[in-house]
Amino acid sequence: MGLFTRDIKTMNDLFIHQLQDIYYAEQQLVKALPKMADKASDKQLKQDFLTHLDETKVHVQRLEQVFQMHGAQVKAVDCPAIDGIIEEADEVTGEVADKAVLDAALINAAQAAEHYEIARYGSLIAWARQLGRTDCASILQKTLDEEKKCDQKLTSLAEGKVNLRAAS
Amino acid sequence: MGLFTRDIKTMNDLFIHQLQDIYYAEQQLVKALPKMADKASDKQLKQDFLTHLDETKVHVQRLEQVFQMHGAQVKAVDCPAIDGIIEEADEVTGEVADKAVLDAALINAAQAAEHYEIARYGSLIAWARQLGRTDCASILQKTLDEEKKCDQKLTSLAEGKVNLRAAS
Repeated sequence: MGLFTRDIKTMNDLFIHQLQDIYYAEQQLVKALPKMADKASDKQLKQDFLTHLDETKVHVQRLEQVFQMHGAQVKAVDCPAIDGIIEEADEVTGEVADKAVLDAALINAAQAAEHYEIARYGSLIAWARQLGRTDCASILQKTLDEEKKCDQKLTSLAEGKVNLRAAS
Repeated sequence: MGLFTRDIKTMNDLFIHQLQDIYYAEQQLVKALPKMADKASDKQLKQDFLTHLDETKVHVQRLEQVFQMHGAQVKAVDCPAIDGIIEEADEVTGEVADKAVLDAALINAAQAAEHYEIARYGSLIAWARQLGRTDCASILQKTLDEEKKCDQKLTSLAEGKVNLRAAS
């Protein structure tokens, strides 16, 4: 879609555009998560990032399935939001000198990405239902549930261990 | 803080850096929200954006209060994440031809910003508590509660009215 061409004329167009946006975002996260796992010192955090990498690869496949079910071309569009979130994660974690503090910063960075996805999948599911695509909505719901679970797991790890160690 | 200088050595440094980041983000949202209110057609949505603009101005003041309570310089640092979220909001809403669909896109854009803030304030509050600054944590908690309430209000408006109109 080109800028200023006003290509989004219907809710269906908006739904497809947002699918393309989150498809790009998930692909960027498939690239980012192994780097975050490399930087993590806490074994559980490292494992959580790698587990979520596997989940994220499935999220990419689910989006391809939704594109196909909906008769839309499997396509990604640039997503400045996730690019900004990943750029900021790289900048901040690159400035941290202490390993325990770095783990706290990595969790914070990952949770920004999780929350971006939670917002986007929430809208996508509501739009899919409104468009009568409960089949697409239920696939997207599986991913949303995993994003929320990942976010909660990171909060527990931060508050139960990582923050304590970072502040000591 | 400069890149590659590894200026973040302690959790306190990370806390202050993240305060500076969200301080910048809140200031950018003070600029963005009036434009979003202008673009909105639904009266309730327009009003919700303006109400949240007033709240966001208070969030800026609360951050200044937290900087001062914590003995830190009131300062903003660039936040590529919120810049990306706002850039994407401008791009997508600029491509929408239909007013009702634009309202749905505006809600989606605003919820991405809300979720960014929910993630950041969540970490800031956990870090403040870990640093023994329950006074700072309770001020930040007020803002987090308002961000969550705003997000829920937007979901209700989308699912109760805006999406229905956008799909018709």
